[in-house]
Amino acid sequence: MKRTVREIGERGVIETILRFLEPMPGMPVPFGDDVSAVEVDGGRLAVVKTDMLVGRTDVPPGMSLKEAARKAVVMNVSDMAAKGVKPIAVLAALGLPNSLTERDVEELASGLNMGAREYGAYIIGGDTNEASDLVISCSAIGFCEKGRFIGRRGARPGDILAVTGFFGKTSCGLKILLEGLGAPREIRDTLVQSVLVPEARLKEGLALASTGAVTASIDSSDGLAWSLHELSRASGVGFSVENLPVAPEAERFAELHGLDPYELCLYGGEEYELVVTVRPDLWYEAERALRSVGGRLIRIGVATRTEEVTLNVGGRARTIESKGWEHFRT
Amino acid sequence: MKRTVREIGERGVIETILRFLEPMPGMPVPFGDDVSAVEVDGGRLAVVKTDMLVGRTDVPPGMSLKEAARKAVVMNVSDMAAKGVKPIAVLAALGLPNSLTERDVEELASGLNMGAREYGAYIIGGDTNEASDLVISCSAIGFCEKGRFIGRRGARPGDILAVTGFFGKTSCGLKILLEGLGAPREIRDTLVQSVLVPEARLKEGLALASTGAVTASIDSSDGLAWSLHELSRASGVGFSVENLPVAPEAERFAELHGLDPYELCLYGGEEYELVVTVRPDLWYEAERALRSVGGRLIRIGVATRTEEVTLNVGGRARTIESKGWEHFRT
Repeated sequence: MKRTVREIGERGVIETILRFLEPMPGMPVPFGDDVSAVEVDGGRLAVVKTDMLVGRTDVPPGMSLKEAARKAVVMNVSDMAAKGVKPIAVLAALGLPNSLTERDVEELASGLNMGAREYGAYIIGGDTNEASDLVISCSAIGFCEKGRFIGRRGARPGDILAVTGFFGKTSCGLKILLEGLGAPREIRDTLVQSVLVPEARLKEGLALASTGAVTASIDSSDGLAWSLHELSRASGVGFSVENLPVAPEAERFAELHGLDPYELCLYGGEEYELVVTVRPDLWYEAERALRSVGGRLIRIGVATRTEEVTLNVGGRARTIESKGWEHFRT
Repeated sequence: MKRTVREIGERGVIETILRFLEPMPGMPVPFGDDVSAVEVDGGRLAVVKTDMLVGRTDVPPGMSLKEAARKAVVMNVSDMAAKGVKPIAVLAALGLPNSLTERDVEELASGLNMGAREYGAYIIGGDTNEASDLVISCSAIGFCEKGRFIGRRGARPGDILAVTGFFGKTSCGLKILLEGLGAPREIRDTLVQSVLVPEARLKEGLALASTGAVTASIDSSDGLAWSLHELSRASGVGFSVENLPVAPEAERFAELHGLDPYELCLYGGEEYELVVTVRPDLWYEAERALRSVGGRLIRIGVATRTEEVTLNVGGRARTIESKGWEHFRT
């Protein structure tokens, strides 16, 4: 009882909170998924998401206020994307240190608007407050047919494990911004931009949802390894990862600094690729749907019966640890 | 451009932000109302609200974490109540100082649940983060028929101005908690509890909405005077206040400390009564609807043609100033 949140960590905080919440009867999306939802009428859901950006932990040096505000929206869009739901509107509650200037507020407002408009949504309201930290707490809303909602629980053994892009760039970008590591110009921009201007895979998520091929989905904002373990726990399956999707720029950066590219790829975070499981019989439809919107679906492994997440590359099996970004601890 | 948010104040911050937001085409509720909304289908609205509680400004000494969390929910419920919309579900994004203990988190979770359940809603999701201040950013969702939504713009000259309760208790309660003013035991509890355990007028708001008698409505969280001016500006009418609804406990407290009861009543804040305008031909229906749910509708004045807010009591007219609680300044 006397343990601090630093000791119990973010997962411990969430577990503690959930013990005190009476769940809504017939709640269409269980606690712990990327988003929440309420029924609108017979067949539809209003899908809602709230995600808070705090300057101290979520805004690395080098990120402008405009980029921070845009990111606060993108974080929410990404979770909606993972569920195949188009966000229609976003609310933004702001906590602002009173040393900010009018110009800073303009930057923030412009970033909020940009983040929403890039994905076809609008900022429709919000709230402003005084706070010690910069706090941007966005909430997004969208609608979907109940049967179309993609949760975390539907993965079955034999499903194909896939992602919408390569991993590791944000880990490298953060090392450049936070630790001052160097990188040749031709990769530096890509790595840094992946942190400063993250992109949600919305058109990819919507295209995937339209195929009915995806059995479970999550975004990778807490890192690829963490996402795999979350899907594993929620669906009661394991994963054998046979192809680790390391971004070429991350590979190069790892080589330069003697880092493990697998570490960069698996245990990063602030990455917004989708991690999905796909019915094998609909794989080509899913792949084609993604190509049709200019995206790609990269097969990285398969769902297995035993609840373990392993990396099987080069004839060698190693365990992928259940770790990732965690507030209060990291 | 170099002015700080402290100099431009909360209203200035909001105006600055709005200059940068592209409004959603056909937005069913304009910026600046108590809530926002999107259309669900032909005739219905999904009504959403976000309101952030920050420990530094919104949690006076003497308020427990449980009370703070409950209040964060109530703040949002109150805005929905003013619009005649029942909140179904609430999301809670938390910013927590990492010195908090597991027991503190339990208090917060318990308060969130209590705040939602008191009004028939459920907490259905959220987000946890590390922050310097305690930050509780709640978002509520509910649904209503489009024609039933009560905005701020519908007041017409001749409409009856009314409120759902007496004012001034929270001003006194805050003076007790913040400035250490004394009060006899028989009124102290009421005054302090009005701050620590505020109540949203949800059943009152829903009852009023069911009558179709209310032409405009707002909650009074920034103070009665501010609410009157907001309704005045939005509807393009003025108000003549003929009966200032000072709570008897506030009257007594004012007398004890040589304070102006009108000041306490008009320029307080953190009060959650509804301030409404009512069609004169439906006044009795409105009054009866409120009595039927155990509430009361107190007539305090009338809407006028000229856009001024005046107090006309005892044969003397005085201007009610457009001031109230304002972040960054107050």
